[in-house]
Amino acid sequence: MPEKIILDCDPGHDDAVALMLAHGSPDIELLAVTTVMGNQTIEKVTRNALAVARVIGLDSVPFARGSERPLVREVETAPDIHGESGLDGPVLPEPAIELDGRHAVDLIIDTVMAHEPGTVTLVPTGALTNIALAVRREPRIVERVKQVVLMGGGVHIGNWSATSEFNIVIDPEAAHIVFTAGWPLTMVGLDVTHQALATDEVAARIAAIGTGPARFTGELLEFFAHSYQDAQGFDHPPVHDPCAVAYVIDPSIVRTVRAPLDVELTGTLTLGMTVADLRAPAPESCPTQVAMDLDADRFWDLVIDALERIGAVEL
Amino acid sequence: MPEKIILDCDPGHDDAVALMLAHGSPDIELLAVTTVMGNQTIEKVTRNALAVARVIGLDSVPFARGSERPLVREVETAPDIHGESGLDGPVLPEPAIELDGRHAVDLIIDTVMAHEPGTVTLVPTGALTNIALAVRREPRIVERVKQVVLMGGGVHIGNWSATSEFNIVIDPEAAHIVFTAGWPLTMVGLDVTHQALATDEVAARIAAIGTGPARFTGELLEFFAHSYQDAQGFDHPPVHDPCAVAYVIDPSIVRTVRAPLDVELTGTLTLGMTVADLRAPAPESCPTQVAMDLDADRFWDLVIDALERIGAVEL
Amino acid sequence: MPEKIILDCDPGHDDAVALMLAHGSPDIELLAVTTVMGNQTIEKVTRNALAVARVIGLDSVPFARGSERPLVREVETAPDIHGESGLDGPVLPEPAIELDGRHAVDLIIDTVMAHEPGTVTLVPTGALTNIALAVRREPRIVERVKQVVLMGGGVHIGNWSATSEFNIVIDPEAAHIVFTAGWPLTMVGLDVTHQALATDEVAARIAAIGTGPARFTGELLEFFAHSYQDAQGFDHPPVHDPCAVAYVIDPSIVRTVRAPLDVELTGTLTLGMTVADLRAPAPESCPTQVAMDLDADRFWDLVIDALERIGAVEL
Amino acid sequence: MPEKIILDCDPGHDDAVALMLAHGSPDIELLAVTTVMGNQTIEKVTRNALAVARVIGLDSVPFARGSERPLVREVETAPDIHGESGLDGPVLPEPAIELDGRHAVDLIIDTVMAHEPGTVTLVPTGALTNIALAVRREPRIVERVKQVVLMGGGVHIGNWSATSEFNIVIDPEAAHIVFTAGWPLTMVGLDVTHQALATDEVAARIAAIGTGPARFTGELLEFFAHSYQDAQGFDHPPVHDPCAVAYVIDPSIVRTVRAPLDVELTGTLTLGMTVADLRAPAPESCPTQVAMDLDADRFWDLVIDALERIGAVEL
Repeated sequence: MPEKIILDCDPGHDDAVALMLAHGSPDIELLAVTTVMGNQTIEKVTRNALAVARVIGLDSVPFARGSERPLVREVETAPDIHGESGLDGPVLPEPAIELDGRHAVDLIIDTVMAHEPGTVTLVPTGALTNIALAVRREPRIVERVKQVVLMGGGVHIGNWSATSEFNIVIDPEAAHIVFTAGWPLTMVGLDVTHQALATDEVAARIAAIGTGPARFTGELLEFFAHSYQDAQGFDHPPVHDPCAVAYVIDPSIVRTVRAPLDVELTGTLTLGMTVADLRAPAPESCPTQVAMDLDADRFWDLVIDALERIGAVEL
Repeated sequence: MPEKIILDCDPGHDDAVALMLAHGSPDIELLAVTTVMGNQTIEKVTRNALAVARVIGLDSVPFARGSERPLVREVETAPDIHGESGLDGPVLPEPAIELDGRHAVDLIIDTVMAHEPGTVTLVPTGALTNIALAVRREPRIVERVKQVVLMGGGVHIGNWSATSEFNIVIDPEAAHIVFTAGWPLTMVGLDVTHQALATDEVAARIAAIGTGPARFTGELLEFFAHSYQDAQGFDHPPVHDPCAVAYVIDPSIVRTVRAPLDVELTGTLTLGMTVADLRAPAPESCPTQVAMDLDADRFWDLVIDALERIGAVEL
Repeated sequence: MPEKIILDCDPGHDDAVALMLAHGSPDIELLAVTTVMGNQTIEKVTRNALAVARVIGLDSVPFARGSERPLVREVETAPDIHGESGLDGPVLPEPAIELDGRHAVDLIIDTVMAHEPGTVTLVPTGALTNIALAVRREPRIVERVKQVVLMGGGVHIGNWSATSEFNIVIDPEAAHIVFTAGWPLTMVGLDVTHQALATDEVAARIAAIGTGPARFTGELLEFFAHSYQDAQGFDHPPVHDPCAVAYVIDPSIVRTVRAPLDVELTGTLTLGMTVADLRAPAPESCPTQVAMDLDADRFWDLVIDALERIGAVEL
Repeated sequence: MPEKIILDCDPGHDDAVALMLAHGSPDIELLAVTTVMGNQTIEKVTRNALAVARVIGLDSVPFARGSERPLVREVETAPDIHGESGLDGPVLPEPAIELDGRHAVDLIIDTVMAHEPGTVTLVPTGALTNIALAVRREPRIVERVKQVVLMGGGVHIGNWSATSEFNIVIDPEAAHIVFTAGWPLTMVGLDVTHQALATDEVAARIAAIGTGPARFTGELLEFFAHSYQDAQGFDHPPVHDPCAVAYVIDPSIVRTVRAPLDVELTGTLTLGMTVADLRAPAPESCPTQVAMDLDADRFWDLVIDALERIGAVEL
């Protein structure tokens, strides 16, 4: 049985790859895609999500637009990494599908409540604003979802500051709500995603597929490589977001550690830091765990397999 | 033309009086009543709201249950002031009406969006959780409401700490969202409400009305008087919440000062303080103002007039 | 018996007037003058203190240079108020006396420990850095001083932000140490000093004295008037610092309220706010009190009397 | 030429070992020992320092008592780790030497200023209160010391909270002052000291020495082992403080990384965390570095060599 997921994202180059992996993997049943400001404004990331859907031939799943700003703080975007469009690099096609009329928060709530308890996994790969609003608007979803597997944070690594990761620090209050809600939660953060590097070999394997979606992916990763080289000095770009989807497909790809997790909301140097208490082994009852290591080879196998399954798509 | 309002409250003794004033005043058209945890849990304050509705014969307005907890922080209630039920004192009748099926946040959004722009006033008399969630879930309401007139905060007075008032400090992040949303906002805080004392003369005037709702009100104020005597050393209890309704009915009852307003979110001694910058006159474009003085006689005239208009209600 | 005081200051126009009042009043025995950065750098305020000493013929008291920066935070000065020299306006004479070789902190400690317990009053009119360091370096001074009477803070008024006063906010940690040390402390803040306005009548009375020190004072106040007009919109400048000295001379000039006092160290909007808990009367054992009102006429009488007693001074 | 050091400590079991290492090593010239509250009250740690001095025959170096409390916060001690005396386990002899009459802060300043510039290394192994007060009281020491090598903090490990280490978190403001003063500073924190475990083999080597000081050390480590087993689940206790002394003796024992360092002062989950920005290599001009790995074998060789050199001491 494939895993039912809702992908809440802000495409974003690596969000686009996450969407491909979710769409192409036989082990994922994608129930809905929702958007949230982050890598760019809500207008841009929503348009990007629809454009990617067209590129990969995804037309049977509702897409809903979500939060235009964080819960408490002001909007911050990442044009240095994702460009002015939020998905610079390839030419983006016009969307072929319409947005769902509902707000992302409502689509998330409706979808979770419409499925059997314990069957829906939330996969947020952007700021946690939509998820936090859904929890506060309909607290029953906490008991009802199967788990939350999110890309964000980092225990021993930061990227937006010495101690914080972008998705978390741009809406730390939302992250705090999601981290401490009490549901099973796996944080797939920079400790792991900085191991998911799009090396030359990976790029070559993707190019070899030869389809439109693969070419599109290649162009995304090429832009992403330049961004990460210029902005953060990486030789090869870390492709964060599909790591969360990959964990849902096959948890054995990632080594996790059970630990209490929370988000720093008042620190001057540490605002938005994801704090894991690793001083002692956490009890079984601890609902949160943090990903520490990735089997990068098997991760890329999953991504490439998904691209191959997507095949050629007529635009 | 009466002012259309949505009353968002947590009854609560003074919330009950606010509800009476809104129902009985010919200058108010009550569109909806929504509840929020605060003086007691959401279950209790929602039941209390319905009970008060029955006591005062209010049966034509939707009531919706709202947030069970603050946006970011843990629940805090005020049993020392409002008792275990949240409305200790009188015997509470069984509710006669059903709750609206919608969440308070949705009822607020729907109501605002269904009316002409610039016609609906929000009157929150509890924590600002519902209003904040509505703003984040449907940002267009900010442009669409006429104004927000809230009971909460204090410029030179606190009650929950030296610098903070209960409604604000139990959900300061929500208050920050509401205070800084950009809509016209009047803060009716402790500076004013500590002038709205239920003196012996006021109690006598209410008793003289002789109806069921008046007796109920008398019993509420008697309990409230004891609470405030014991907990905060007041000779006569300040009846906070109807001051906000009274301002909507007749702004000339309250002296206001235009000033930038915000809420302290990180202070150790000042968490939840409502900070007004009074160093210089604010420009006309400043959307926020703070109430500084009350014409207590005219305020009580409004309350008593409303009670008289409500008349005898058959339970 | 005159009151023995140590004046810890950062001249500064109003500090200069405080120094004159302390020197000229028959009810004050000035034991030492110490300096602290604030209105300008430590170099400038120290030179200014010595220049004022020469102007007023004060040559028998040790002057020591103190802290060049706050305890924890970076240096902030107030050139908009006091000019580039820290004492813009009059021509400053060359100092006629040498600095004491000791650091201000050591001179404070030595002076307090050398006098009988309960006889020395500390009068800080700048940042509280020196006093805080003295308390931590020699905790026995807390028991030994008679009292601390400081100019700083404000309960219902701010000048450096909506909620903070300059002397406190530039070194809030030092202020916290001093406010909570346990010694008898009177905070003479903006609530009072904004009543100590150098009106035209005051200026005329000072001019009428006709001596060098009076002319110097007149020139100081003229510059100060322009600064306060330009920077904060005052019609007449508040002459803060001598209010603290005046309280030592005659406490009946100032109405005080006993209240717990502390300083906000972490607030975003309220950093450096002096928080007085005024919700209930403080017990007799509360060591701190806050000045709320000033008899401005009697205050200026004291200042002018001091200037007259200083008389003509040969430069 | 041996390295001249001032050891500022709060004995404390591992402080005692640090004192032995400093005394016994031929590569260290111990100029002064100063104490600071921390593991226990200032009275207890000062007495403990003198007792250890007697045990190891150290009688030619000034000992001065220092700060009884942190700069800004309240006193916190660690009886769970060090017992009620601060040095539980062995019987402590009566001190044989007198304290220097000066406060620790003055002894530090005097010693640094009395030696050639660039020759004195400060080795704090407790809270940084004394060092911070010395920096503020006599800023010229910053230019004059050779370096600061401190035991405290941790980049990826905490012990007092998930993110903080005891020495730093009990006086974070002092730590901030010391970390950002601009002098060459090496932080020897938990990342390294948790590699300095007193294993059974280490204990056996110490026991084999057979002298009084060695027996005393053995008894210290036995108590310490029980404390760390009970309080933090360690199989063998980490012997933190001598790691800093060992680094002074032979920097090649420790792998360090140059990185900007600061201390979190306002975090809720992260108060007192030592934040190293490891995102990119630090420039040569960065004055701070953090120790990341220890050659434990060579570390223990140094300790045991020092104990052997101390030899038998007659009590």
